[in-house]
Amino acid sequence: MDDATAETFKLTLEYDGSGFHGWQRQKKDRTVQETIEKALAVMTRETTPLIGSGRTDAGVHALAQTASFRTSAGLNADVFFNGLNSLLPGDVVVLSCEKMPDRFHARFDVRSKRYRYHILNRPTAPAIGRQFVWHIRKPLDATAMKQAAGILLGTHDFKAFEGAGSPRAHTVRSVTDSTLKITGGGNLAYDIAANGFLRFMVRNIVGTLVEVGLGKFTIQDVADILKSKDRSRAGATAPPQGLFLTEVVY
Amino acid sequence: MDDATAETFKLTLEYDGSGFHGWQRQKKDRTVQETIEKALAVMTRETTPLIGSGRTDAGVHALAQTASFRTSAGLNADVFFNGLNSLLPGDVVVLSCEKMPDRFHARFDVRSKRYRYHILNRPTAPAIGRQFVWHIRKPLDATAMKQAAGILLGTHDFKAFEGAGSPRAHTVRSVTDSTLKITGGGNLAYDIAANGFLRFMVRNIVGTLVEVGLGKFTIQDVADILKSKDRSRAGATAPPQGLFLTEVVY
Repeated sequence: MDDATAETFKLTLEYDGSGFHGWQRQKKDRTVQETIEKALAVMTRETTPLIGSGRTDAGVHALAQTASFRTSAGLNADVFFNGLNSLLPGDVVVLSCEKMPDRFHARFDVRSKRYRYHILNRPTAPAIGRQFVWHIRKPLDATAMKQAAGILLGTHDFKAFEGAGSPRAHTVRSVTDSTLKITGGGNLAYDIAANGFLRFMVRNIVGTLVEVGLGKFTIQDVADILKSKDRSRAGATAPPQGLFLTEVVY
Repeated sequence: MDDATAETFKLTLEYDGSGFHGWQRQKKDRTVQETIEKALAVMTRETTPLIGSGRTDAGVHALAQTASFRTSAGLNADVFFNGLNSLLPGDVVVLSCEKMPDRFHARFDVRSKRYRYHILNRPTAPAIGRQFVWHIRKPLDATAMKQAAGILLGTHDFKAFEGAGSPRAHTVRSVTDSTLKITGGGNLAYDIAANGFLRFMVRNIVGTLVEVGLGKFTIQDVADILKSKDRSRAGATAPPQGLFLTEVVY
């Protein structure tokens, strides 16, 4: 890449996480980043690193992940949009490609993100869409879960919901939406938006809300867990396949 | 099976048609009927034929297919429900099992059926749920499609929408619902209910409605096609993966 002529592009991406070992490039396994970088290399004829807004874990999906890259290949945004979509496999799609100011950075410039988590609460497992929900057999008290979800709104230290083995120096985040919706047929959707997320934060919150739904935690327990900053008190990590990254705001 | 002690059961089934070559048992390919019959044979220790409400084609899904079988195994409905669900693979699920009057027959006793067809209308292909929609890139005029859908309501000879190579003696059917819904994000859902369906009838109707959406057929053309009873005048058969059998009424 020739720095003097390099241009910056932003991609908005949809992917089905089922067939990927997450976002981040790895030595052996198929990942979203590596899959797109391969297609970019074909188009630009050189190694073109792709910067995601953040990682998604293995099995997690995206309706609107964002990523940026810099290239001096001299191709325009439409050419990247059409070219990448014709090169990429069916489980990852470029929804849009935009030319950005040179200094745009898909990770550093993120202002907030939004996730949705899908739960199916009914006696029988789903046959259709089973790679896109967490199936819970026992009846959930959705009203209690709704109330518990509300407790997480606002600026708090979310250390109790941070995945083990990945400590961040700063664990205070501002949650601007935390809403459980009942969408019919046993389907529940949990929406959460924040200025940033700790590792496994959404899945640990969902695991905790489900304990509330099962009557194992009270709503007060959730407030206490949050205050305790103690991961060992929160619920188990919810499985990845119910989780969708739905929006990245810059 | 000992006829004197035989009991009749009805299954309600959900399946993801992606991995099946349709409902009907075949010599080589994996089908829904064969998959369930294998599990039934394990439980009843004898060959137990399963009668579906009707066939679904390869790639077509079901949210509530129904089927019946007779057995003198002496097992009750709960045992079949739990046993079959533990024996069946993830892409087919028994939603319920009921003991029925002896003479119940899943095909002959059908009073009406309902299907839903999902279309995704946007420039880019879907990555998520791509086995469950027909993706159409060019913009569709949904208002015109809605009006055209209404023309099919009522009792008509649907010969123009019957698949080739599978003629029925009687091709008159009563359509009690034929509605196109706009469900957001480029998603369209077409619902149709009738006292019976000809082979490929839903997919041929959808193919024709899409031609209306693309401006190739007018609403009057659809009325004329219906009246003509001429298959060659209707639109192409829509692909199977957007189609869901959603209800069977007895």
